[in-house]
Amino acid sequence: MQETRARVLDRIAAGPVGGPQIAEDLGISRAAVWKHVEALRAAGFEIDSAEAGYELISIPEFGGPAVEFGLDAPYEVEYHETIDSTNARARDLAVDGRANVVVLADAQTGGRGRLDRGWSSPSGGIWLSILSRPQVPPAQAPAYTLAAAVATTRAVREAGVDASIKWPNDVLVGDRKLAGILTEMEGEADRVSWLVVGIGINANVDAADLPTDRPVTTVREEVGDVDRRELTQSLLAAFHELTVDLQQVLPAWRKLSSTLGQRVRVETPGEEIVGDAVDVRFPGSLVVETAEGTREVTAGDCEHLRPADP
Amino acid sequence: MQETRARVLDRIAAGPVGGPQIAEDLGISRAAVWKHVEALRAAGFEIDSAEAGYELISIPEFGGPAVEFGLDAPYEVEYHETIDSTNARARDLAVDGRANVVVLADAQTGGRGRLDRGWSSPSGGIWLSILSRPQVPPAQAPAYTLAAAVATTRAVREAGVDASIKWPNDVLVGDRKLAGILTEMEGEADRVSWLVVGIGINANVDAADLPTDRPVTTVREEVGDVDRRELTQSLLAAFHELTVDLQQVLPAWRKLSSTLGQRVRVETPGEEIVGDAVDVRFPGSLVVETAEGTREVTAGDCEHLRPADP
Repeated sequence: MQETRARVLDRIAAGPVGGPQIAEDLGISRAAVWKHVEALRAAGFEIDSAEAGYELISIPEFGGPAVEFGLDAPYEVEYHETIDSTNARARDLAVDGRANVVVLADAQTGGRGRLDRGWSSPSGGIWLSILSRPQVPPAQAPAYTLAAAVATTRAVREAGVDASIKWPNDVLVGDRKLAGILTEMEGEADRVSWLVVGIGINANVDAADLPTDRPVTTVREEVGDVDRRELTQSLLAAFHELTVDLQQVLPAWRKLSSTLGQRVRVETPGEEIVGDAVDVRFPGSLVVETAEGTREVTAGDCEHLRPADP
Repeated sequence: MQETRARVLDRIAAGPVGGPQIAEDLGISRAAVWKHVEALRAAGFEIDSAEAGYELISIPEFGGPAVEFGLDAPYEVEYHETIDSTNARARDLAVDGRANVVVLADAQTGGRGRLDRGWSSPSGGIWLSILSRPQVPPAQAPAYTLAAAVATTRAVREAGVDASIKWPNDVLVGDRKLAGILTEMEGEADRVSWLVVGIGINANVDAADLPTDRPVTTVREEVGDVDRRELTQSLLAAFHELTVDLQQVLPAWRKLSSTLGQRVRVETPGEEIVGDAVDVRFPGSLVVETAEGTREVTAGDCEHLRPADP
């Protein structure tokens, strides 16, 4: 949202206020105030003009200005009703030199998961990609993936969904997938140029609208429809706060993970590892105690077999 | 080089051979053989047509077909007399889905080093970028950078230049820089999509043509002009062989490094570390013994202070 428009909105949200007062406070013309109010109304903000001045009646359910308004994170939000892929759009913005932009969509037509797997993204979900340019080596990228899983799990738990994280970044309810994360990046060998963290949450959609061969669930199935604006803001604020200092990520992840303490099978690109998942290490590898000794697994598909023997 | 053309060249190089014989062996028309011979001549291959048949008299000094001919590595070589940046071109090829391509140039107009530093690339040097798609996580990218330093150092040593490696990847003669390496990549958090390793060697150029505020040298200054085709082929073969199994990289790097055993100062993004460089660890971090204990440094500018105390 354009900065002056955001300030006009903040003034109106703070209580009924006259147009002339806003104009004076912000050092702009009365005509400019009126134009911003009209633009806000067009974006879905319900603004009354009573005798006491402008008054904010309601905020749109979803969208760029709605998520930016009151957002506790330094992100600009670019909203699309429908887009091919929020990650692809964020990558294009990265190539244009942008940073700290969230691409948000109501529906994706070409959503992707890890390893080029498809990802159904019908209208009503929360499909977003966060573009940032952290000063870290590419080796630390997994920590951002874990931070996204933590932020997502916290946000859906606030909405009443009993979610937990399966290593590294599957957000599940029981064994049903609720949200997925795909981190992409470009950089030199020792520093990231840009990082795009894509998060897809099956929010206000029917599970039947998610054709997949794996068990899935949605926020709607679990607890009914959620305030997507609130959930998105909560997620973005948590992600931002966690990634300001990556040392916070693992302790937070451990608390929300369902993998630690489980007997697991991890399919890595090279081999299959079976053992007890005992810990996670920076930037995000899983420590597995196998019959042959302790292994640290950096990448792979993880399956929970049963709780580990005590 | 187009595959049939390469096979025609191989036949001619194996000894005088008639056009009809080549046509029969390769299952193509005599007119096609003639066209390939003409194309090879246009690319600088000197081919005699005597009574005994076609005979290879000489190979061009440099260029794509010259480097591909006899190359012991599975790379296609795209040559440019002058290009903005071989890394930029290799990145474009990566976006087009290509793999195992070497972009080679006689001169670059917009060469770059690490951290967006400029890199002078006058005519007569060896400026190349290797595009590959290895099945590894981004965290292993530094090993490719070290492999490039090893391959470059081996190749220039074969040419008689007394070069060694300063951690992580500066190829020096004494304290004068002979070659630089810039690795770029794109990928997901746990797997590389593409990797571009750029290598610039100050080969047959005058040091005076390299405006820089740091000490530099060139192969010409050290030992006189070199056969660039041979050096490039040697480098590419060594890089390919090392990266087939990354476990080979560190032992090879240790043998060629001038950093181990030195007292060093490393400027990292966060702090300055001073101590004795004692080892290198996979995928490429430097182990430094400081007054406060042992540190493992993943990225930074390294300066040799003096040999470490015994």
